Amino acid sequence: MADSSSNGTAAPAAPAAAAAAASDPKSSFLSIYSRLKSDLLHDSAFDFTDDSLQWIDRMLDYNVPGGKLNRGISVVDSYKILKEGNQLSEDEFFLASALGWCIEWLQAYFLVLDDIMDNSHTRRGQPCWYRVPKVGLIAANDGILLRNHIPRILKQHFRQKPYYVDLLDLFNEVEFQTASGQMLDLITTHEGEKDLSKYKLPVYRRIVQYKTAYYSFYLPVACALLMNGENLDNFVDVKNILVEMGTYFQVQDDYLDCFGDPEVIGKIGTDIEDFKCSWLVVQALERANEDQIKTLTENYGKSDPTSVTKVKEVYKDLNLQAVFMEYESTSYAQLISSIEAQPSKAVQEVLKSFLHKIYKRQK
Amino acid sequence: MADSSSNGTAAPAAPAAAAAAASDPKSSFLSIYSRLKSDLLHDSAFDFTDDSLQWIDRMLDYNVPGGKLNRGISVVDSYKILKEGNQLSEDEFFLASALGWCIEWLQAYFLVLDDIMDNSHTRRGQPCWYRVPKVGLIAANDGILLRNHIPRILKQHFRQKPYYVDLLDLFNEVEFQTASGQMLDLITTHEGEKDLSKYKLPVYRRIVQYKTAYYSFYLPVACALLMNGENLDNFVDVKNILVEMGTYFQVQDDYLDCFGDPEVIGKIGTDIEDFKCSWLVVQALERANEDQIKTLTENYGKSDPTSVTKVKEVYKDLNLQAVFMEYESTSYAQLISSIEAQPSKAVQEVLKSFLHKIYKRQK
Repeated sequence: MADSSSNGTAAPAAPAAAAAAASDPKSSFLSIYSRLKSDLLHDSAFDFTDDSLQWIDRMLDYNVPGGKLNRGISVVDSYKILKEGNQLSEDEFFLASALGWCIEWLQAYFLVLDDIMDNSHTRRGQPCWYRVPKVGLIAANDGILLRNHIPRILKQHFRQKPYYVDLLDLFNEVEFQTASGQMLDLITTHEGEKDLSKYKLPVYRRIVQYKTAYYSFYLPVACALLMNGENLDNFVDVKNILVEMGTYFQVQDDYLDCFGDPEVIGKIGTDIEDFKCSWLVVQALERANEDQIKTLTENYGKSDPTSVTKVKEVYKDLNLQAVFMEYESTSYAQLISSIEAQPSKAVQEVLKSFLHKIYKRQK
Repeated sequence: MADSSSNGTAAPAAPAAAAAAASDPKSSFLSIYSRLKSDLLHDSAFDFTDDSLQWIDRMLDYNVPGGKLNRGISVVDSYKILKEGNQLSEDEFFLASALGWCIEWLQAYFLVLDDIMDNSHTRRGQPCWYRVPKVGLIAANDGILLRNHIPRILKQHFRQKPYYVDLLDLFNEVEFQTASGQMLDLITTHEGEKDLSKYKLPVYRRIVQYKTAYYSFYLPVACALLMNGENLDNFVDVKNILVEMGTYFQVQDDYLDCFGDPEVIGKIGTDIEDFKCSWLVVQALERANEDQIKTLTENYGKSDPTSVTKVKEVYKDLNLQAVFMEYESTSYAQLISSIEAQPSKAVQEVLKSFLHKIYKRQK
């Protein structure tokens, strides 16, 4: 997880010059944020008071630009690859960035509300918004405002574009899928007594697909395709590839939570303590003998270090690290083969650039 | 507030035949709800599990159809008046009802989330959704799902209509205005120490206009106008009239909370106890002498009966009942005069039918 104060995306060992070059796209992308915020604070559809202007200004700065911005920046990157000549005019860069920021706004909206539902404490290294003094449950309405800003941005900058209505449909559909995935997660894994028998691979895949993959992987590419004048009905395969890549990404996340280096990933994983429906526990349950099932049932979801260690021992005894390596190679090979079956070289390049950003990542 | 079990909208003293006739539009409107719910439960954009189907089914039945349905039904009524010949085909009735139900879905979404933010206990005579066992804060995501159902309904039934994009823009703009009004209410009247000095008429009007009037009064008529092929840019005056009517409606609500007959309005008002920014306290503060300001400051927002009585005595000493009557007549005269300045007789009739539903209402 990137800290809000760091804007380097290169690996820690990269030379300074490369790191500086890599930070440029992020700076240019960040420069668009201020313009979009200013437009929202001058929206004539609402008669702002000074207090409400200040509230929104602070709420946006606190919640929108502090993440890694990978989703947003990938709209610009993808559009650049798709566009003939691979050069963007100033206006095209602005529009692609605006769509990227819409995804970041969407993400901020989900996170503000998820943190309330999960009773979380911190996010991106600072207290969750609803835990900030004088905010409290006003945060729920702020989440809704973040969501409402997306159609305001789209209307202001895309109303005259031939793909405007498709953009609205796209954001609506992806938001619906994400909220449905969140529902599935909430009613399957949060509800009632702790019951590991629900944690099976099809359930896991369905939650990840809807809750994460659509908005994190498909949405950025779909935005770029629409800007490039494409009809999304012709890109169902691309959607499926990106959803599969999103699933692979989440499996990595679950793996790194337990087996990653806390120094590198920037946090100490707590999926075992939190009774998360992690890929690791799902794989363990599929492979465990009776004794191991008993150990998992007795110790998963408990926060004392002894319980956590017992769970990790079962994972090691079942050789889940090797199971993950095997999954990683198989997924990669399948993804590459699906990507190379795509008729357009530019689309192949977009998909490969996504895949190479995440393949064998350590953080 | 109508009980969910009652579907009579006529005054209690109306003859049985009239009451039965009046209940017909509500029954026909209600019959459309089941069809829309069924469509949502078969939405191919999400791969439902049995548990999630059951969850949505129950959540919709609990939160959507149990209100008075005035907002939804008024789309059908308004469209019937606007349409040449004043007769709707089965298909037209379905479409107007579907738009009406979108407004009811929007209302359900606001109420589910408002109840969480306000820590409320009951709604429409039953526990608030988030207080139902096993629901809890999953209700926040359910609120979001309710909101997401609106574009699903619109896409399914209106995607091919020439006014589809205008419908999306309309719902987006009105939702933005409502959420902005809610923000203004939350940061002005809920925040920090109880401070009556903020309760002034312009603040009051701004909150009511954005938080209530747009979605309750303007939105139903705007939907009917779009169905009738109109361009909403030509109806700015109509919007202003409806927002004014919505303000008048909220003033009545505030008046009845204190001076209405609890037997008739179906609840016992608690605006004084709840430190609400009510029209009455705003008017009282404008007119009070030093002693009366002191009494209000010391007693407004306290729940013991003695404090409530002292506030009500100030209201009576300031003759707020007469101030209200005067406001009511003046508003009515101004509204009628603005309505009669409208070029279209059908539009005049739509607006008058709204006004006559609320003028001098006792509940």
